[in-house]
Amino acid sequence: MPWDIETPAVVVDTTRLERNLRRMQAAAQAGGAALRPHAKTHKCLEIGRRQLAHGAAGLTVATLAEAEAFAADGCPSVFIAYPLWAGSGSRPARLAALRERTELRVGVDSGAAAAALAAAAPGLRVLIEIDSGQHRSGIPVAEAAGLAAECRALGLDVIGAFTHPGHSYAKPQGADIATALAGERAALAAAGAALAGLTDQAPVLSGGSTPTAETEVAAPLTEVRPGTYVFGDRQQMALTGLPEDNVALVVAARVVSATRAGAAVLDCGSKTLSSDRAGWLDGHGLIREAPEATIVSLSEEHAVVRGLTTPLRVGDPVTVIPNHVCPVANLASELLIADGDTIAGRWPVTARH
Amino acid sequence: MPWDIETPAVVVDTTRLERNLRRMQAAAQAGGAALRPHAKTHKCLEIGRRQLAHGAAGLTVATLAEAEAFAADGCPSVFIAYPLWAGSGSRPARLAALRERTELRVGVDSGAAAAALAAAAPGLRVLIEIDSGQHRSGIPVAEAAGLAAECRALGLDVIGAFTHPGHSYAKPQGADIATALAGERAALAAAGAALAGLTDQAPVLSGGSTPTAETEVAAPLTEVRPGTYVFGDRQQMALTGLPEDNVALVVAARVVSATRAGAAVLDCGSKTLSSDRAGWLDGHGLIREAPEATIVSLSEEHAVVRGLTTPLRVGDPVTVIPNHVCPVANLASELLIADGDTIAGRWPVTARH
Repeated sequence: MPWDIETPAVVVDTTRLERNLRRMQAAAQAGGAALRPHAKTHKCLEIGRRQLAHGAAGLTVATLAEAEAFAADGCPSVFIAYPLWAGSGSRPARLAALRERTELRVGVDSGAAAAALAAAAPGLRVLIEIDSGQHRSGIPVAEAAGLAAECRALGLDVIGAFTHPGHSYAKPQGADIATALAGERAALAAAGAALAGLTDQAPVLSGGSTPTAETEVAAPLTEVRPGTYVFGDRQQMALTGLPEDNVALVVAARVVSATRAGAAVLDCGSKTLSSDRAGWLDGHGLIREAPEATIVSLSEEHAVVRGLTTPLRVGDPVTVIPNHVCPVANLASELLIADGDTIAGRWPVTARH
Repeated sequence: MPWDIETPAVVVDTTRLERNLRRMQAAAQAGGAALRPHAKTHKCLEIGRRQLAHGAAGLTVATLAEAEAFAADGCPSVFIAYPLWAGSGSRPARLAALRERTELRVGVDSGAAAAALAAAAPGLRVLIEIDSGQHRSGIPVAEAAGLAAECRALGLDVIGAFTHPGHSYAKPQGADIATALAGERAALAAAGAALAGLTDQAPVLSGGSTPTAETEVAAPLTEVRPGTYVFGDRQQMALTGLPEDNVALVVAARVVSATRAGAAVLDCGSKTLSSDRAGWLDGHGLIREAPEATIVSLSEEHAVVRGLTTPLRVGDPVTVIPNHVCPVANLASELLIADGDTIAGRWPVTARH
């Protein structure tokens, strides 16, 4: 670790970041789809601006607060790819105000949520959420035409359908990515057919997660919404074979305790790395300076390391590639921006929780 | 859920909070030990002030930033119960400044960290960290006298020893609490003997986690450092039989999707509840309005619920008792303070990451 910084800290390599932004933009373009990156990964205005500068059609977010942050920063088009509930508290007023600031699109998977959206923002653009196999939110594609008609009757502007092929994360080594990709395409093709006559223009068919988008962007998708690709993480390395050199974000940490042979404790616990861990991934991150070792457990401010052959002493700095990068950015108040050996800037994580 | 609030939100019941503060203060007093609550659970200045008002001897924290926040708020005595590394960046200056503001104590488990502390803050009060069975940080008690002598030679003021009986969290239903309690007492008794002649006054012997402190506070401990007791959580209910009525913090959430029978999606995902889950605990939280159901998985903004017999519809509000409350407070920017059906205040989580 070349930087003399306080630890734990979240450090982003600006060269790798730019390369990742460029690569995904080119992949979307080659596949004939608009890129609408999911900003929940970074929640950082500067990175959103860069995604737009590289050619993104707009940004995707998961919450009203995220949408407000990016719209206030001038993002021209924001898609809340989430079955937003708009029926309580200050939500109706916030939604109406947000719509004045940006070209807003919102996900919907129920008549009840659609009615609340229509009451808050008449004529709002919505996309029907389809379950393409993850079984989280979203309706079966067979119900798409019915919900779309219901939305239209409520005065909403149905512009298309979207799905999240999140089951691409189910197994390592690409085992489930092909299944998720096939399910995504089939669901969106069927949704496109179901929406015929219910949208004023050709429907937006929006899919994509980083694993599927890294694999192939192609018809029938007209839009992809990958998030994690901006940084990459250990999970993507295992899922898609992402080279370690493409990972743009690391947690800078230090050894704070080393009382046993082959073991150490780092100062990056679950309040820095988060406890997110896919069941098929051993350990809580990859220590770049000691890849042979395993982070066997996390407490809030302790990462317990075992299996070290690299000699690590108290005070030694290390860098850790997190398992899943999205919650790591959300846990940080700022990203330190590294240009080689120099910390060139600090970008606030403005839209964090 | 009686409050018309935006979800997800973290809500604290002020009556239960006060009762929890009072109960633990009385337990420490009855056991003849000082109470030095761990503020990492709440990171909230107002709650720290209340703990002191109830008779706490000072606060415990895990990081320099937490110590700075509570010291700036006027906390008279702060113990960083963590093997703090003080040797890099602005740490020496921060430590020296912090010491001017409060009666500061810092944990140490290595000569290297002790040397960095001594260089930054000559004469600093330190406590030797003992491993009483958790095998995280801390030295075997047999090495306590040696490290204490080394600290004294460096000019540090050794005032005692501390341990974290974290293995009290290893199994539900009290199975490991007795073991952890016995290990804690034995380790601190041995540490007390080892430090004879190496401390200027009778040594501080500091232990305690919420499960062990809820069970019994007694000699040889002169101090206990429970954290979670202020709020309680689902883990403590399973560990110590904590009644649900004692849990003072809930996550207020709403149903955002309900496309399958017996299933629903709530808007409190891992960015609200955190992914923390003890291996012996099923699911990701207890839905008070539907205790029969299980939160089977979390995405960042989705909690996927299965096994519902309670009819939940899109838009319905619910309240969730988190598995582990400490990361939940850390993920929130503020705590909503409920006095019965009224939201009476909003307290910022000032010392969060």
